[in-house]
Amino acid sequence: MSILAVGSVAFDNIATPSGRRENVLGGAATYFSLAASYFTDVRIVAVVGDDFTGEHESVLTKRGINTRGIQHANGKTFRWGGQYLDNLNEAKTDFTELNVFEKFQPQIPEEYLDSLYLFLGNIHPTLQAAVRLEMNRTRLTGGDTMNYWIQNTPKELAETLKLVNILLINDAETKMLGSDRSLPRAARKVLALGPQALVVKHGEYGATIFFREGAFGIGSHPFRAPALPIEEVQDPTGAGDSFAGGFMGYLASQGELSREVLKRALFYGGVMGSFAVERFGTERLQNLSRDEIDARFQLFRELTHLE
Amino acid sequence: MSILAVGSVAFDNIATPSGRRENVLGGAATYFSLAASYFTDVRIVAVVGDDFTGEHESVLTKRGINTRGIQHANGKTFRWGGQYLDNLNEAKTDFTELNVFEKFQPQIPEEYLDSLYLFLGNIHPTLQAAVRLEMNRTRLTGGDTMNYWIQNTPKELAETLKLVNILLINDAETKMLGSDRSLPRAARKVLALGPQALVVKHGEYGATIFFREGAFGIGSHPFRAPALPIEEVQDPTGAGDSFAGGFMGYLASQGELSREVLKRALFYGGVMGSFAVERFGTERLQNLSRDEIDARFQLFRELTHLE
Repeated sequence: MSILAVGSVAFDNIATPSGRRENVLGGAATYFSLAASYFTDVRIVAVVGDDFTGEHESVLTKRGINTRGIQHANGKTFRWGGQYLDNLNEAKTDFTELNVFEKFQPQIPEEYLDSLYLFLGNIHPTLQAAVRLEMNRTRLTGGDTMNYWIQNTPKELAETLKLVNILLINDAETKMLGSDRSLPRAARKVLALGPQALVVKHGEYGATIFFREGAFGIGSHPFRAPALPIEEVQDPTGAGDSFAGGFMGYLASQGELSREVLKRALFYGGVMGSFAVERFGTERLQNLSRDEIDARFQLFRELTHLE
Repeated sequence: MSILAVGSVAFDNIATPSGRRENVLGGAATYFSLAASYFTDVRIVAVVGDDFTGEHESVLTKRGINTRGIQHANGKTFRWGGQYLDNLNEAKTDFTELNVFEKFQPQIPEEYLDSLYLFLGNIHPTLQAAVRLEMNRTRLTGGDTMNYWIQNTPKELAETLKLVNILLINDAETKMLGSDRSLPRAARKVLALGPQALVVKHGEYGATIFFREGAFGIGSHPFRAPALPIEEVQDPTGAGDSFAGGFMGYLASQGELSREVLKRALFYGGVMGSFAVERFGTERLQNLSRDEIDARFQLFRELTHLE
């Protein structure tokens, strides 16, 4: 079933211990869409500037992603520069230029309205809510947010969280949003704000999904998928968005939402995140095969499987 | 089968977001022995001062631990003070008073010489090696070390590592000892120094075991055990030593060393670490039952189990 991703497309300058790259195609919606494209049909709504060429767009269309929803505005595309020289687990931002992204107003093409799955990337919660309300045939909505919105737009975020079925954020964001230093307690408080499930991304250590009591009718025990230890992390940028793409893309490919499907989705999320970091930018995500993905899924499974 | 633990007994002053405690019985060998005591017979070699009373010793003997090897010296027991007020994952040391531990020369009682399992706690690598060589009937030796020895006694440590079958250290120590920022590569370099297996402890995210090619005849794929998200971490002190105690204690209880046994041992390590942090000091480790331990083992197993 089709999934619609709404979020950022960007050009990134990245420095890591493995090297430096400039003007690399990135952005949350880009990583998400590429990762999800290995599982299901993907549609994207984003905004780009004059510097976004047909060549850039073909990175997405080659993977079968419907790019009708990419709005072209006058000016430059969102640009971000960051480095991971001291710590591969946390980006140090060098600069952020919002450019055309600053006035982004998502416009949903008519042909996207039948998308049964929706992913609200990390944008202003009020825009997230507007998209969700317009997509009224959607069965399942995933969402992301960040510390900036948690601190500066708590009321707007609270409204949006009532419309999100599965929130995907990291450990620090969970503790901040739940105002609790205990992860399980913070998770419970976040779930009380609306989502039926919360996926907490642990970076190189995988992710844990927490369920609201009675959510999806599948019990409330948490589940954790580990991440594979990666030989060479070249560039951590986009790992979390690729995780979300693998997770949501797999869910959309399955239709039914059982506990086992959600568990497998969490593993597929980790798989796509682990591929993403092996090369700079989206390079690795552009040229995968489903066989490679499933082989790594098996490695992941065996990594923690007790008889 | 019996296991001998050699290492520190200490009194700790601890401050965490949950409170403060002074003169709490601690030390690596104490946590290790208590955790291992739920699986097998434990013998301990350590040194204490005049301030170590019969009441302190009874914490160990009540768990059936043989304390004949605790040497009593004139002076004060090793004392450590630390806090986790800003970060539950890393202790900030307030003070370290080695006291009688500074001149610790492990003396192995005759009756301990038939111990088939040995754990060399974090002491000077030359002392570790001497103990290992004296324990010449031992079948399997586990060992710990830390950044101080990696940086200051690299040659002595290299000699000791040739005598250790399974090294248990954390992520940062692995990367330092292997001189590599990639965990899998660092692990391979550490294994090239001698140990057949390396257990890397990830704190709240569990642990991964890496194998040298052909080690134990069980294949060389790594295996990871997750840790359970803990509702309330009262005191992280001793979590790693309790992990080692659960891991080595379970191995000693099994005798044979199959891949499945090592995997289960890694889960039991995580189980004991997770209990340790629920209360200050060794409080939680003093009053467990094997039923509670096995129930948590099942929770851990289900936490990552895919059909």
